[in-house]
Parts: sequence; structure tokens; C-alpha cells
Amino acid sequence: MSGGFWINGVDADALTVLDRGLHYGDGLFETLAVTDGEIGLLDYHLERLRDGCQRLAMPEPPSGLREELLAAAAGQSRAVLKLLFTRGAGGRGYLPPEDPAPTRILIRYPWPDHLQDHVDAGVRVRVCSTRLGRNPRLAGVKHLNRLEQVLARSEWRRWDGIAEGLMLDEGGLVIEGTMSNVFAVHGDGRLATPALAQCGIAGVMRRHLMLQAGREDMPVWTVDLSLTELLRAQEIFVCNSIIGVWPVIGVDGQAFEIGPVTRRAQQWAMQARSGREI
Amino acid sequence: MSGGFWINGVDADALTVLDRGLHYGDGLFETLAVTDGEIGLLDYHLERLRDGCQRLAMPEPPSGLREELLAAAAGQSRAVLKLLFTRGAGGRGYLPPEDPAPTRILIRYPWPDHLQDHVDAGVRVRVCSTRLGRNPRLAGVKHLNRLEQVLARSEWRRWDGIAEGLMLDEGGLVIEGTMSNVFAVHGDGRLATPALAQCGIAGVMRRHLMLQAGREDMPVWTVDLSLTELLRAQEIFVCNSIIGVWPVIGVDGQAFEIGPVTRRAQQWAMQARSGREI
Repeated sequence: MSGGFWINGVDADALTVLDRGLHYGDGLFETLAVTDGEIGLLDYHLERLRDGCQRLAMPEPPSGLREELLAAAAGQSRAVLKLLFTRGAGGRGYLPPEDPAPTRILIRYPWPDHLQDHVDAGVRVRVCSTRLGRNPRLAGVKHLNRLEQVLARSEWRRWDGIAEGLMLDEGGLVIEGTMSNVFAVHGDGRLATPALAQCGIAGVMRRHLMLQAGREDMPVWTVDLSLTELLRAQEIFVCNSIIGVWPVIGVDGQAFEIGPVTRRAQQWAMQARSGREI
Repeated sequence: MSGGFWINGVDADALTVLDRGLHYGDGLFETLAVTDGEIGLLDYHLERLRDGCQRLAMPEPPSGLREELLAAAAGQSRAVLKLLFTRGAGGRGYLPPEDPAPTRILIRYPWPDHLQDHVDAGVRVRVCSTRLGRNPRLAGVKHLNRLEQVLARSEWRRWDGIAEGLMLDEGGLVIEGTMSNVFAVHGDGRLATPALAQCGIAGVMRRHLMLQAGREDMPVWTVDLSLTELLRAQEIFVCNSIIGVWPVIGVDGQAFEIGPVTRRAQQWAMQARSGREI
């Protein structure tokens, strides 16, 4: 019941091989959590998508996209929606068509297992050897060029208790997880998350947590974070729209405690399940 | 007559929306020149594709790929073949399937106009503001993450005599054109091309020209090339499998002459039209 495929609003599961999303990764995506027919942080997802369109100089999605997403969510107790939004079909060559007709591809997946276990007990993570290249033109954008993440996630193949990998950039700064953003609580109580000016994806859950923390007088510092500094943190957690907040209880060999800020962040994440204003 | 589409060897022009080439740019491509039913530098293309599969830890293409390409070339006086080779369909998430079934997508395009004009008269190029991020894990590989090239090529929209854009990396070194590799003849007669250890695509025409130059006692130096150094060159040319060698007669405001090394390189490029051993 949870599966489903739509292209430009029509039931379809096959795409022209001329689509620029395939040829160049010329497009964007959003991964959305459905709970009881509602989509968590829907406004943030739609805002980020529009922002990404501006960054890539693509036409914005049609105004009916919100309703299209909600229609795919309707009646689902829990599901994942993935929306791909590409620059559409094109001729040969990098030059975009003068008047592109973007393609929106919507896929509904079953809700993944094991997420709640990780929320409760925390996860161990590894530091990936695959680095993120720096490019401010693309930094923060949730675009379809994701080979760095694929290579990083390929570094550990089998289930060995590792649930996520941390990625550093070419300069050695901690940027994010392969599929998540990272927060650290420092010894002085400051809550910090890596700046994403050079690379990384600006997650909507990251945005939500930063706002909620600020409302509780716990401003989040966006910082250049070395691995050494991260490993000195009191608490570490990773987040995204689907997983919510996972406490990090180990980074390679080093153990971490699950602390009060992380548990508070989990409550903020729970508030994001509804699509309504928070 | 020149158009054609095949997926995994079968006539087809639509691809499952679950393909990882679409979701992540998780794959490779080759663009091949067909002349009188033969494919130029076919061995080099196939070697680079296999090398790329190793770099991305993908299964190699089937041994029948050469015949499949030649069948698509058969009877064509001039055409372009584009082969995309992806990791195939997958579930949600970056982790590749343990036993991926790659997808090969082959598209035959008409031969583009105007190429010979540029070979004869040379081209003006611009220096793009979009930079290439550095990532040695992906450097040289002709993979499907090409947003940097799309953004760079989008910097000039209309025909204004500019045929190509030069791309610098994040450190300011000249790396390549948006769709070509770059060579420079320095004042001391040395022939040089940028090193591709940090970014860029290792073109098969670049490889061919380096080999031919070496055979004529004109070794090609692979160098870190600043824009200042490039602009001091006696001759500049750009190359790829389709265009052959284009002399550069202008970089932004600065004019360049078409020199003897460039004309010699064009003869080497002509020799690459046949798929036979050279």
C-alpha cells in the first residue's frame, strides 16, 4: 500500500532517458516524512526546494506541488516521500534549454525499520575517508550530485552496529553525516553545528532544531569544526527529516554519553512530525 | 536516421525512476565520435569506462559492449554516441546494493553543426566564474555528477562568438574547459596540460594527443597551471573526442595566434577518427 510512483503528477514509473537529472544530476531532491497523512516540516522542504531552484537557475516548481505531495501522503500512517525535481529533458551538452520544462518525480516508500531503536539507544558512527569537495556555488543545496555520499556510505557494507558515517571536507573540517547533519554540545554548554558555506546539505531538520534551540535560549553556533574539537564534545547527535535525532554513542573507538540536550532535541524533532505551523 | 535509444541492448527510451544514475549521479558516461561506421578512440573509451567502474567500485560493463557500440555506429557516416553506465536500480539510500545490476543507456545523436568552422578558424573562450571543487577520489573520472559544468556553461547563454568556457579549481588553477581539456604551448616551446589529480575529467582525446606528441619528441608536461601562466602561452587549444582540436584565438579580452603545434595537434586528432590501432 505504501509504494507509489508519479511523474509530473501522473502515475508513471519510467522516465525519458533524455532527462538532465540522469545525464548531469541537474536537479534537486527532498525526502519527506509522512505521519498520519501529514508531512513533517513541509514548509521548510518547499522553501528549500525553491531556494535550490534559484541557486541552479531553474524554474520553480508549480504552485500545486504542495497539494500533490499531500495527496501522496493521504491515508498513510507512516511513509517516506522522495521528490526529485530536475531541469527536465534536454539535448546533448551542458547548456540548459532556454525554456526548460522541469520534471517532478515523486516516489512513495515504506517507512524504514529500526529508526526508533536508534532514537532510543543511540548509534555508533565512523569517520569516513571519502571527503567532501568544497564549492560555495553548490554548498547547502540538496542537489542530485551525490557521488561523494555514495562513496562514503560504501565504506562500510555490512551491519556492524555502525549506523552513520561522518564526512570531513577537503580541509579536514567535520561537515555532516552521509545522510544527516551533525550537532555537538561543547564542554561550556554551547550547542554547535558545522557551517555549510563550502559544502554540505542544509537540512530542514537542522533548520528546525536551530530555531527551536534559539527559542529556548540555547542559540546554535555555526562553526568551523575540526574532528579534534568534535571528539572533545560532551554530546553529539545527528539528525534528518526521517530519522529525527539520533544520539551518537560512539565515534570510531571513542564512546559518548547521551546527554540532556540531545534528549531535548529529540522532543523538538517530535514536534516536527506535523506539517502544521509549530 | 541518426537518432536511436537503447537500454541494456534493447530498443527503449524510458528508464525506471529507481535508477541510481538519476538519484545520485551514480554512474559514468562516454561520448563517442562515429565516422563512417567506426568509433574514434574506442579502446581508450572502453578502458576509461572500466577504470571508472573500478574507481566507483561498480561492476564492469559486459564484454559485449564493444559490439553493441559498433552496432549502433554501423551505417552512420557521422554521429555521436553517448553511453551512460549507471549502478542500476536501487532502494532508498546511498548504500549501493550488494549485487548491483548496472544499466547501460545508449543514445545516438546527429553530428553537431559548426564543428569544422571552429577547427579551421579557432574559437574564443571565456573564463568561467563557476569553479571546480577539489576531490581526488573523483578526479579524472567521467562520472555523472556534472552540475559544476552545467552552471559554468550556463554563464553565457546566447551565441556571441564564445564557444567554450575555461574552468578553474577552488585554488585558482586552470583545469579544463566545460566540455574539453586544455593544452598550452609555452614560450620555451614546452607543451603542457593541467594535472587532473584534484578535479577534472581525463579526456581520451587528451590521452591520445599526449601519446602522439610524445612520439614526435614533444613530451606533454602535466602541470599546475595558473591563469596568469596560461595567458602568457604562445598557443592554446582545447580538445575532446567530438570536436577534435579547437585553436583558442581569444581568452576573454586577450587575443592568441593559431600556431604550428596546434595545427599539428589537429592532424593527430584526425588520426583518431578510426577505431583501429594508431
